[in-house]
Amino acid sequence: MVTFDTVFQEALGHLRAEQRYRKFRSIRMKPRSRPVAAWQKPDGTVQDVTVWCSNDYLGLSQHPDVQAAVAEGVELYGAGVGGTRNISGTHPAHIALEKGLADWHGKDAALLFSSGWVANLSALGTLGRVLPGCVIFSDAGNHNSMIEGMKRSGAEVRIFRHNDTRHLAQLLAAAPAGSSKLIAFESVYSMDGSVAPLREICDLAEQFDAFTYLDEVHAVGLYGPEGAGIAAREGVAARITMIQGTLAKAFGLVGGYISGSSAAVDTVRSYAESFIFTSSLPAYIAAGALTSLELLKTADPLRTRLFHQIAALRDGLQACAIPVIAGGTQVVPVLIGNAQQTARTSERLLEDHAIYAQPINYPTVPRGTERLRLTPSPQHSAAQINALVSALDRLATDIGWRKAQTRHPAPHAHHKASRHYATSPS
Amino acid sequence: MVTFDTVFQEALGHLRAEQRYRKFRSIRMKPRSRPVAAWQKPDGTVQDVTVWCSNDYLGLSQHPDVQAAVAEGVELYGAGVGGTRNISGTHPAHIALEKGLADWHGKDAALLFSSGWVANLSALGTLGRVLPGCVIFSDAGNHNSMIEGMKRSGAEVRIFRHNDTRHLAQLLAAAPAGSSKLIAFESVYSMDGSVAPLREICDLAEQFDAFTYLDEVHAVGLYGPEGAGIAAREGVAARITMIQGTLAKAFGLVGGYISGSSAAVDTVRSYAESFIFTSSLPAYIAAGALTSLELLKTADPLRTRLFHQIAALRDGLQACAIPVIAGGTQVVPVLIGNAQQTARTSERLLEDHAIYAQPINYPTVPRGTERLRLTPSPQHSAAQINALVSALDRLATDIGWRKAQTRHPAPHAHHKASRHYATSPS
Repeated sequence: MVTFDTVFQEALGHLRAEQRYRKFRSIRMKPRSRPVAAWQKPDGTVQDVTVWCSNDYLGLSQHPDVQAAVAEGVELYGAGVGGTRNISGTHPAHIALEKGLADWHGKDAALLFSSGWVANLSALGTLGRVLPGCVIFSDAGNHNSMIEGMKRSGAEVRIFRHNDTRHLAQLLAAAPAGSSKLIAFESVYSMDGSVAPLREICDLAEQFDAFTYLDEVHAVGLYGPEGAGIAAREGVAARITMIQGTLAKAFGLVGGYISGSSAAVDTVRSYAESFIFTSSLPAYIAAGALTSLELLKTADPLRTRLFHQIAALRDGLQACAIPVIAGGTQVVPVLIGNAQQTARTSERLLEDHAIYAQPINYPTVPRGTERLRLTPSPQHSAAQINALVSALDRLATDIGWRKAQTRHPAPHAHHKASRHYATSPS
Repeated sequence: MVTFDTVFQEALGHLRAEQRYRKFRSIRMKPRSRPVAAWQKPDGTVQDVTVWCSNDYLGLSQHPDVQAAVAEGVELYGAGVGGTRNISGTHPAHIALEKGLADWHGKDAALLFSSGWVANLSALGTLGRVLPGCVIFSDAGNHNSMIEGMKRSGAEVRIFRHNDTRHLAQLLAAAPAGSSKLIAFESVYSMDGSVAPLREICDLAEQFDAFTYLDEVHAVGLYGPEGAGIAAREGVAARITMIQGTLAKAFGLVGGYISGSSAAVDTVRSYAESFIFTSSLPAYIAAGALTSLELLKTADPLRTRLFHQIAALRDGLQACAIPVIAGGTQVVPVLIGNAQQTARTSERLLEDHAIYAQPINYPTVPRGTERLRLTPSPQHSAAQINALVSALDRLATDIGWRKAQTRHPAPHAHHKASRHYATSPS
């Protein structure tokens, strides 16, 4: 099929020309080695590197209890469940995990999905379709999976400026009479680490009778009592109609979920094709996640250590005048502001310093705000933090981006270049 | 949120009124117990039942080598990979499995996804968008995930009658000049077990310069040399531009994949948001699937036993004049032809005979063709087959559907009621 391949080569060439062509880095974690992993180079040789861009925020993927739950589960239940949830693919472990997640968020019900991406597609895709005359009010920084769900729903989407409740209030006030209103937002935004003003959004939702749909994938396990997320920390979980989360980040496994009222969750369960027609997660993933959930409830020491390491990294970077987007979350974005320099910095980190931090470019972030997104963990040592800071200090000079940015770039001010018109990795 | 819950209750009531509301049956496989599993009843009690509706077609989910590979993988690599494929989530096991799958299908490259559903969404969603002026020719019986991918692509979709190459030829001939043509079809259709005329479709594709996209999820592992699928069996794999498959059925795990030319696969990898923005499958799933793949290559004895049991079941049903849709695949559809009778038969099987076969209703299949979809496996014994046949024999009389259908129902003749306008479980 030479003609088709020609078309594909052109499509790929377009990405290469824009320096947006992505290459996989093959990385193998070793037992209890976090955050050090074996980088398998394209030439086949292997080198140990320190990983600074994982979303396994607490390192639970290597917690022996979680690993044991998975290993035991595969022995007991088999390697797969052999069906969709409706056709022989529901296991008691799925039910138990859904109950555990619902309780954690203070909700009646929860539902598992293959991934957080599919959870957002399924939930927003269904809610926007089922609610009569639905208008969705979407934060400009929302993740690709939420955008895809809104599109799929057929509902009208109105975008408010990132975390701008004044703009949101204007849009809500201007909604057609009789419409169902749904506000879709995240608690922690993954690429700049900003946090939504949850209480103000809940106030507006109550004022305008709006459904609140909150993506907490970068927050569950890390914030609030028992790690139940930012909504729990702010004491507003009961005011959020539906909370969406993931098992692939702080939980250390894979999969996504939603949590809300029985009727809301049951509606997504009953109507979302992306849920109905998909084989379910293996039972041992659910068993592992249930173990993670119990660990997360009492993981305050691990969270304390995480935020200690985050502060140490931020202090180190600040001392070297490395431009970092301000914030108090686990996401530490080093702003380089140029695709080539970001790529070059990432390559030099890997090749000269055995440090792995993937470059983040347009369309994931607006042009001119290209960055490295650093994610410390409780397992990163002081020595590893120092090594990262001194490598960046050197590369900022060598590659010439130390003065690239000195202020917060307000990446969502122009939403044509933001995530609502582009896309952003989870 | 009483008002929203009222809307959801109404939406659910609509399904209940149409007898389409689905309840999960919680089923727990026990070590080496296939096809017997523990059914956890809503009242909490547990009873052993024989499962007759699993897509774990060969029972590999309980193969000790597959289970060991998963258990070993979770110990070595951790419970999750902590990122998308582009951001710290690519593991050597993913690369090795993709190479293994590509080789198996005689293709240059392969790519893994969270599920077969997401594989179809991603691949068709991207191909229809990237190919200039793309017109997709879609079999009326295609699975929901393919339909969602075509919709997502924005390409024009023209539906040909199920397995009707004459109709396909007419539609191809009528396509606008200069359009890119893509034929999307399955090899084994899951709900009636029909098989596509692959050679004729490949002939047409060559005549009209069309891309061939083949979903082999119900065929990989079961047919052809090394179990590589119907395209391999028919000797046309090289004429299929892209083959899509799953790890959740004959492989016994979870996940999906595509396989094709390097440029085609790389284009999907580079453009599909549903791939880019999703955390990758745990490395131990890939390790388990690589073990399954090696087992499938030499699984002729298992396949022989499977088809022996299928023949025994069909013979038994025929001897009792139970209406079964004709065919030579692993899908044995017992045609009841009425939603209430199908539900009643399924309930009586479970409660009185400890046999689990989920009812298949509209919109999964057209109204009037409601059925039980039976899937024998090599592990089903002669005694279990006999028990099923005699239970169905009794229920066909008791519930009164033995004479419901005596001919093949041509379920796709009216595609308004078929899968292109409704949906169908995988």
